[in-house]
Amino acid sequence: MGVPTSPDLGSLRSRVVEAVIRGGGAEVPPGEANGLVWLVPGEPERLAALLDEHPGIGWVQFPWAGVERFATSGVFRRPVTFTCAKGSFAGQVSEHALMLTLACLRSVSLQARTPRWCSVDPRSLHGLRVTVLGGGGIATELVRLLRPFECRVTVIRRQAEKLEGAEETLPPTALHAVLPETDVLVVALALTPETRHVVGATELALLPAHAVLVNVARGAHVDTGALVEALRDGKISAAGLDVTDPEPLPEGHPLWSDPRVLVTSHCADSAEYVTRMLCERVERNVRNLRTGHPLEGIIDPVAGY
Amino acid sequence: MGVPTSPDLGSLRSRVVEAVIRGGGAEVPPGEANGLVWLVPGEPERLAALLDEHPGIGWVQFPWAGVERFATSGVFRRPVTFTCAKGSFAGQVSEHALMLTLACLRSVSLQARTPRWCSVDPRSLHGLRVTVLGGGGIATELVRLLRPFECRVTVIRRQAEKLEGAEETLPPTALHAVLPETDVLVVALALTPETRHVVGATELALLPAHAVLVNVARGAHVDTGALVEALRDGKISAAGLDVTDPEPLPEGHPLWSDPRVLVTSHCADSAEYVTRMLCERVERNVRNLRTGHPLEGIIDPVAGY
Repeated sequence: MGVPTSPDLGSLRSRVVEAVIRGGGAEVPPGEANGLVWLVPGEPERLAALLDEHPGIGWVQFPWAGVERFATSGVFRRPVTFTCAKGSFAGQVSEHALMLTLACLRSVSLQARTPRWCSVDPRSLHGLRVTVLGGGGIATELVRLLRPFECRVTVIRRQAEKLEGAEETLPPTALHAVLPETDVLVVALALTPETRHVVGATELALLPAHAVLVNVARGAHVDTGALVEALRDGKISAAGLDVTDPEPLPEGHPLWSDPRVLVTSHCADSAEYVTRMLCERVERNVRNLRTGHPLEGIIDPVAGY
Repeated sequence: MGVPTSPDLGSLRSRVVEAVIRGGGAEVPPGEANGLVWLVPGEPERLAALLDEHPGIGWVQFPWAGVERFATSGVFRRPVTFTCAKGSFAGQVSEHALMLTLACLRSVSLQARTPRWCSVDPRSLHGLRVTVLGGGGIATELVRLLRPFECRVTVIRRQAEKLEGAEETLPPTALHAVLPETDVLVVALALTPETRHVVGATELALLPAHAVLVNVARGAHVDTGALVEALRDGKISAAGLDVTDPEPLPEGHPLWSDPRVLVTSHCADSAEYVTRMLCERVERNVRNLRTGHPLEGIIDPVAGY
């Protein structure tokens, strides 16, 4: 069985992944490939062309958790099993979400930018009502990190099954009812046409004025213009964003200068961690493929994540 | 029994404390006072004079956790029971310590001060070796908040008893041996002549270059000049300071402009929280005094905390 990596062989990550594939029991480079690890960001049409050339490829692994650019290209309609890294990076992303939450509650942007003594009244996370949009790996890990803070966590997700550790697990239709009772709203779900702008002017207006918004998913989950207006009008109190729309956020954008906003530049994960987690998943999936076990991180071609 | 508050009766906190004293069963204002809640910051000589005038006062409650200015004044040599708020604010202070730790590991000062996209490689707290100087309320709470991060926590304290949840509890003499194996050093102990500059040039040089220093205790625990030099020479990687020496940290001080340093202005606790925690302690101590139970937060006059 052969599993090659996509043609950016110069990169360290690609070489590491190749070594891992060998560890998992596959040959590289293969004569006739059964699987492919696709490391090129974007370029779904190039992937489609490669799959046309190599009809023996029945499995494609992506290194990212979010694959919305591939979903919209239609490549998932092929009779191929696509897997991604979803859930794999949840540890560091949830840690980043907790950091952004604490930083917003404790006015860290303001303090980091003020080079003189400026005592501010902090807010504690203890016992707050946290609503997590999304019930995947990040939500699961975040609930674990929040446990010592005794927060009342509500998870909003499509899957009805209760997320362990959350006080409530509700369907997306419950979002508007939950927002007025939310102190911290964390966006941690996959980007699909349905979840684009899931946090817009209506949702921001429903949050209490003291609420904090944290986004560690994709920039387009939040309507950026509506967020700028909500902050201007005092409809929420702070925002911590690891992702933005557009991304990168252009210089001079009002979100850069608002002292209530902390923008981190899509850097919740360390490079070492992403490579290690990806390699572990690839190794397990190569082994799973060889031994006939179910693959990890299978993308639902209809849902698009 | 009477328990008056010190003569800054105009403040809201003083009035709240008076109401609490009534709740705890004491009269205000008293004819002959048995106890005193001293809310004036500093001015130990004024307290000493008041105790001279009112020899019936056998108990004095302070609203702060740290009472080093009173300890050095010698007022604790009187035959009076002094209690402070030690342990009372540990919840919010430990939360602040966690925030400073995560913010240092994730280069938040740099990112908050850079109004353009600047992706940085974050470091995870997961599994790191955390050394906590001090084994009181803050350490106990911090160990609880760190549990989901699966850190290896070493507590350094005088008391030999193992601190629950810590991997190791060691005496102060073990500090130098522990520092080279420390990723995050958190200062959370009382300031006494012995603990002044407990983190100086020697200690900073013993830490690994990637180590992070967090101080949520008193500024004078850290030799500020040595810290500036250690950062300049790359002996540690970042510092999160809620307290400084001198305090307030003067404008133009190099710690304000170092992008690896996050200074918060002695604001780990919210005013509402401090008032509530103090009132709860005063109420319990007034009740304890009336019913002959041991008081909470008794200051050891020899140790000075």
